[in-house]
Amino acid sequence: MKEFSLIFHEEIPKYIQLSDYIKHKIDIGEIKDREKLPTIRALSEMLKVNNVTIVNAYKKLQADGYANMKIGSGTYARRKEVIRSFNKEYNKTFKLLSSGGLREYIDFTGETTSSSFFPVKDLQKVINEVFDRDGAEALLYQDVLGYEKLREEISKRFWKNKYSSEDILIVSGAQQGIDIAAKAILNVNDKVIVERPTYGGAISVFRWKRADILEVPIENDGIDIAILEKILKKQKIKFMYIMSYFQNPTGISYSEEKKKKLIALAEKYDFYILEDDYLSELIYDSNLVYNPLKSYDIYDRVIYIKSFSKIFMPGIRIGYVIIPEVFKDSMYLSKINTDISTSSLMQRALERYIVKGYWRKHIEYLNEKYRSRYTFIKQILERDFKGILEFKEPNGGLSFLLKFSEPEKFNSRKLFFILRDKGVLISPGALFFRKEQEGDKYFRIGFSQTNHEKIKEGLNIILKELSL
Amino acid sequence: MKEFSLIFHEEIPKYIQLSDYIKHKIDIGEIKDREKLPTIRALSEMLKVNNVTIVNAYKKLQADGYANMKIGSGTYARRKEVIRSFNKEYNKTFKLLSSGGLREYIDFTGETTSSSFFPVKDLQKVINEVFDRDGAEALLYQDVLGYEKLREEISKRFWKNKYSSEDILIVSGAQQGIDIAAKAILNVNDKVIVERPTYGGAISVFRWKRADILEVPIENDGIDIAILEKILKKQKIKFMYIMSYFQNPTGISYSEEKKKKLIALAEKYDFYILEDDYLSELIYDSNLVYNPLKSYDIYDRVIYIKSFSKIFMPGIRIGYVIIPEVFKDSMYLSKINTDISTSSLMQRALERYIVKGYWRKHIEYLNEKYRSRYTFIKQILERDFKGILEFKEPNGGLSFLLKFSEPEKFNSRKLFFILRDKGVLISPGALFFRKEQEGDKYFRIGFSQTNHEKIKEGLNIILKELSL
Repeated sequence: MKEFSLIFHEEIPKYIQLSDYIKHKIDIGEIKDREKLPTIRALSEMLKVNNVTIVNAYKKLQADGYANMKIGSGTYARRKEVIRSFNKEYNKTFKLLSSGGLREYIDFTGETTSSSFFPVKDLQKVINEVFDRDGAEALLYQDVLGYEKLREEISKRFWKNKYSSEDILIVSGAQQGIDIAAKAILNVNDKVIVERPTYGGAISVFRWKRADILEVPIENDGIDIAILEKILKKQKIKFMYIMSYFQNPTGISYSEEKKKKLIALAEKYDFYILEDDYLSELIYDSNLVYNPLKSYDIYDRVIYIKSFSKIFMPGIRIGYVIIPEVFKDSMYLSKINTDISTSSLMQRALERYIVKGYWRKHIEYLNEKYRSRYTFIKQILERDFKGILEFKEPNGGLSFLLKFSEPEKFNSRKLFFILRDKGVLISPGALFFRKEQEGDKYFRIGFSQTNHEKIKEGLNIILKELSL
Repeated sequence: MKEFSLIFHEEIPKYIQLSDYIKHKIDIGEIKDREKLPTIRALSEMLKVNNVTIVNAYKKLQADGYANMKIGSGTYARRKEVIRSFNKEYNKTFKLLSSGGLREYIDFTGETTSSSFFPVKDLQKVINEVFDRDGAEALLYQDVLGYEKLREEISKRFWKNKYSSEDILIVSGAQQGIDIAAKAILNVNDKVIVERPTYGGAISVFRWKRADILEVPIENDGIDIAILEKILKKQKIKFMYIMSYFQNPTGISYSEEKKKKLIALAEKYDFYILEDDYLSELIYDSNLVYNPLKSYDIYDRVIYIKSFSKIFMPGIRIGYVIIPEVFKDSMYLSKINTDISTSSLMQRALERYIVKGYWRKHIEYLNEKYRSRYTFIKQILERDFKGILEFKEPNGGLSFLLKFSEPEKFNSRKLFFILRDKGVLISPGALFFRKEQEGDKYFRIGFSQTNHEKIKEGLNIILKELSL
């Protein structure tokens, strides 16, 4: 048995000192995630304190998110951030590759538009305009909510003034939007619902807040409402995180019916929905109409997060959040606590960029470019991968989620390493599931960084590997 | 008595449902901060459950930071973010004024260098250089730690390569540094020590993390070590937040002796120190040597945070953190969770700015400008305010903390409103103390935004008011 030795001070309740002591051991990794803690009796004997002290310490650990007490089985440590085995390996690969070597690969893992499409010249032009027009003004702290003219422009162009500039908070990208919302709304052990599978970066934030994360499977037209309702009837949910268009990684978009249903459920069961609208500008099928969940939000239940990084350019670090009335104070303070405000120069440049019509022009350009890649990749998949891979057409976005037709024959985590050694990078399903193995029959192919030639070459290599 | 009505579901322990229910009431403000919750007996009768359920629910509320159980007195609600009365009023004033009107005031509240000193042209020049040199590259996601050349430059110029670029994390200002560190290190109910008085923005982050904040008074050469040791002997401290140079708001700097002592204590009692180095570039007395706490850190106990916003320009949103080995993984993940990475364009521009020698030149220029203001304000204070105000010379920085010689006659919160109506803005001590009234005998005068003429005019108005 692991050694526990601590000297108790007189002034502090023993169970608190003990729980702090164990927390520390968990934090520094001396006690591993999911490791069984000593039995109550064993520990009380070792430390010469009575059973109640141990029980209370374990209860406190549980309340603080550091342990799970399982009846009849014992108490198990829970570590704050669990870097799971594959994720770790995967990240290491990218850390190694990103120091220059990445460019020699056929990279199907990209999630943001290719740098070859960045409107560098136009951005430089508007930045210089801002310098010349505003001078030092452009470099002052901004209002916490963000540069007012940009918020007004967003309100006008994207929401027809349905939301006022006071409802909008400028953030440094979608990730910060998720973080700020979680900070403002979530408490330890609060319950959060996510789609299964979903974006790992969001799960990670909720896990760090020590929230209790529940997964609901996704269907072809959105989350499984029957399963969702079953959970809502039993448990108090604080909020839910969804991607309404081109859900990452499945690529599905919500039907109008499901969007309306979600809003009604949020009102009925008193929870809020974090809508991450990260790529809805890229729609290749005119039957797919753009109406985010927020546009159905008659009860003010949706915290809408929009990133400009994914579609525009990652390095600019700008996005925005539409905040329901009830969270206005807390989100405002959460932003101050996080970084006071977002870079003012970039906000001013983006405002110019939108006002001058560059934004609309750029989105049209990207749609044309990516529609062509999308059609190309879809044709190859349909023609060459019959009986090998299955997929649902996303009709937009920058990727396809592929499923092995014979899942018993393949494993996408293994496939990742095999393909990597052949110069092709894919995103295995394990990245998007809390239980990695559930993702092993899927992998994602993104075409943001690959032109026609590379798509052809890369898919050929994959085909060869899967036809063996 | 307030009404508590809830229908218990079968599947979840009742005490958890009850504590969630009360949390919600606290979150939405239906139960106020410090409001007494019903007695155990009263609530158990009202809800028809037994006493143990109520006790467990209250214990859980306490563990989650939502209540204080005071023996013999009852249980009191604790609200996550307590915007205290004056702070609220104060912020409202600034929110109103900042929409343009601020410029007509004599503003002694400034904490960052004046926009009239911003090196706008030089910044524009280096940004264009980056565009021309790097093109789209400048707008890609950066390595999470930040642009490598900037980190190398920081390592070389500011630390003589004592820390490598791998020890440095680029952040979007000091506030984000504090937030990321708190997120990576702190858990609910962890104990944090701060100086009294201190920077409100840091307290706010720790409070949001539901940490237990302990204050130790500051003396003329740093924190009171005797009181600190007394606390350390009794309680397990997670970390401590200090400003080693021109502490905000007192203006004091730590003596070498105290810095060494702090490092030794951190090692002995196993805690870490967050050093916020926000203004150390402005030193007006050659006897005051610049050696941050981090430079004495033989045990790797100091998380060093440097902001470029305060001294350079706020809108650029860049700072950096030197991370002790033990927190490397957790701080790295904390940054990803927070906003993935800091704006790449700005990092590249700052690197150019430093390499080309603009940085050094700019700091020299600011030192000259602000030394002159500092001397000017000091002379007036010494000459005209004898017997009215007392202060200790900070010998650097951008402000003076002033104390009423006859504290029974004045109150700085009241003085704030009186002076505001006369066109002068000051920072009352209440902003820097957890218990506002403790600050009433102090106020802070910053000279970053006021030139000689305005200093003279503003101090005249203050003098008139205090001589009545």
